[in-house]
Amino acid sequence: MTDKSSPIGIFDSGLGGLTSLKAVKSLLPHEDIIYFGDTARVPYGDRSKETIIEYVKDDINFLLTHGVKAIVIACNTADSMAKAEMNEIYKLPILGVVSPASEVAAKATKNNKIGVIGTKATVKSGSYEKLLKEYNTQAEVFSQACPLLVPLVEDGRVGIDDTVTREVLSGYLEPLKEKGIDTLVLGCTHYPLLSDIIHDIMPDVTLVSSGAAAANVLKETLISQNLLNDKKEKGNTSFFVSDNVSDFCENGGMFIGEKITDSVKLYSF
Amino acid sequence: MTDKSSPIGIFDSGLGGLTSLKAVKSLLPHEDIIYFGDTARVPYGDRSKETIIEYVKDDINFLLTHGVKAIVIACNTADSMAKAEMNEIYKLPILGVVSPASEVAAKATKNNKIGVIGTKATVKSGSYEKLLKEYNTQAEVFSQACPLLVPLVEDGRVGIDDTVTREVLSGYLEPLKEKGIDTLVLGCTHYPLLSDIIHDIMPDVTLVSSGAAAANVLKETLISQNLLNDKKEKGNTSFFVSDNVSDFCENGGMFIGEKITDSVKLYSF
Repeated sequence: MTDKSSPIGIFDSGLGGLTSLKAVKSLLPHEDIIYFGDTARVPYGDRSKETIIEYVKDDINFLLTHGVKAIVIACNTADSMAKAEMNEIYKLPILGVVSPASEVAAKATKNNKIGVIGTKATVKSGSYEKLLKEYNTQAEVFSQACPLLVPLVEDGRVGIDDTVTREVLSGYLEPLKEKGIDTLVLGCTHYPLLSDIIHDIMPDVTLVSSGAAAANVLKETLISQNLLNDKKEKGNTSFFVSDNVSDFCENGGMFIGEKITDSVKLYSF
Repeated sequence: MTDKSSPIGIFDSGLGGLTSLKAVKSLLPHEDIIYFGDTARVPYGDRSKETIIEYVKDDINFLLTHGVKAIVIACNTADSMAKAEMNEIYKLPILGVVSPASEVAAKATKNNKIGVIGTKATVKSGSYEKLLKEYNTQAEVFSQACPLLVPLVEDGRVGIDDTVTREVLSGYLEPLKEKGIDTLVLGCTHYPLLSDIIHDIMPDVTLVSSGAAAANVLKETLISQNLLNDKKEKGNTSFFVSDNVSDFCENGGMFIGEKITDSVKLYSF
């Protein structure tokens, strides 16, 4: 049985979900968190829907062995492809990042022109377009798949002076600029690390980060279900990955803005 | 039982091995070939050694169900990490790409300064350095991991005018240029698609493609073991992938220089 003292589960295909973890820790500092990165099977962005559904089930089943009270799918691809199916199978609250970010963006836009950037699979799924139009029936949505951004971020090329990342981003953003969007959804948990460059290219556009939006909805959900941890101490975070612990420790710090000092354990499927 | 009429098996983590397939088809046009791309688990380049060994065993066991007479590991990472173990387990000829390319490069160099570019895992394994020095005891070897090249190639950014790929490549190649190398091993089966840009950046350096080198050693091996197919007709190629058949068909043509018209079948582990 889970209760308010049980941990929250957060998972992603790899490192990106750490930006969501950062947002959750900042908003809910007293919660214990189990983070799982499926680094043996990353990236999900190029896989088929059937494969992603199987992977997501594995990820959730692993988190359930740790007695989590709620789960955040901190991966736009996994959320877009598999959340509906997961909500049919499992009883506990399983939140994604797409719906929270869509709601924020749908309300933030003033000219009803919203851009979405994400992996191929996220864009192909059409999930943002569908939800943005549900939250704002006037919205026009312009989507752009950005397959190179995850590799660039994971290579550490996130500095405002990185000319390669800037050129790649400019190419992806140009068509959205031409459409006159005033709001842009960062539809991949890696992209908040590129916020500075994106803001530089599109200074007047409101950026919506899916991880931060998800943290807000998680807090509301825990309150409404009386599951908020009422302890006074800072919560603990435990990290698990399915491969390559050392790479995760080395590169993960960039995503949460501090060195990963907690131990990271290997869990192989 | 296999004999000279049996097919050759070639596998890679995904698309890159198709450049080796192209080289093998060109040199051995009468051979039947089974190509397997492990697209459900691509890329191997960032995985741990233990994981790669498990994946390679799966790949080989799949090819054995098709009665192959010899196998080419058309993936530098898989070869570097797992070939020694595979040669202990299996009896049939299992060839890699690293040893053939090392032999060619070791003999091609005039100033004994050889560069190697590859994935993180290939470079970290040190396999090229070890073999190059075995084939040429005078050789000085300079290695450079190039994590962005595979994503760039798979995004189709291989044109001589692509400024992003050129800038990324220039960054990777600059330290090798400074060392004065006269020979460069393209230690990843994706890289032959970047030959034109690399040649432009380093016009006086001899480029050694691992797939072409492997095709030569395969031919020698088949001849020496009396396994060369003596039929007169053109051989057939059958394609299998572990995920996303449509993406493979769409993107594979770029690697073999012709549209994939043969059927591609799904095989899930």
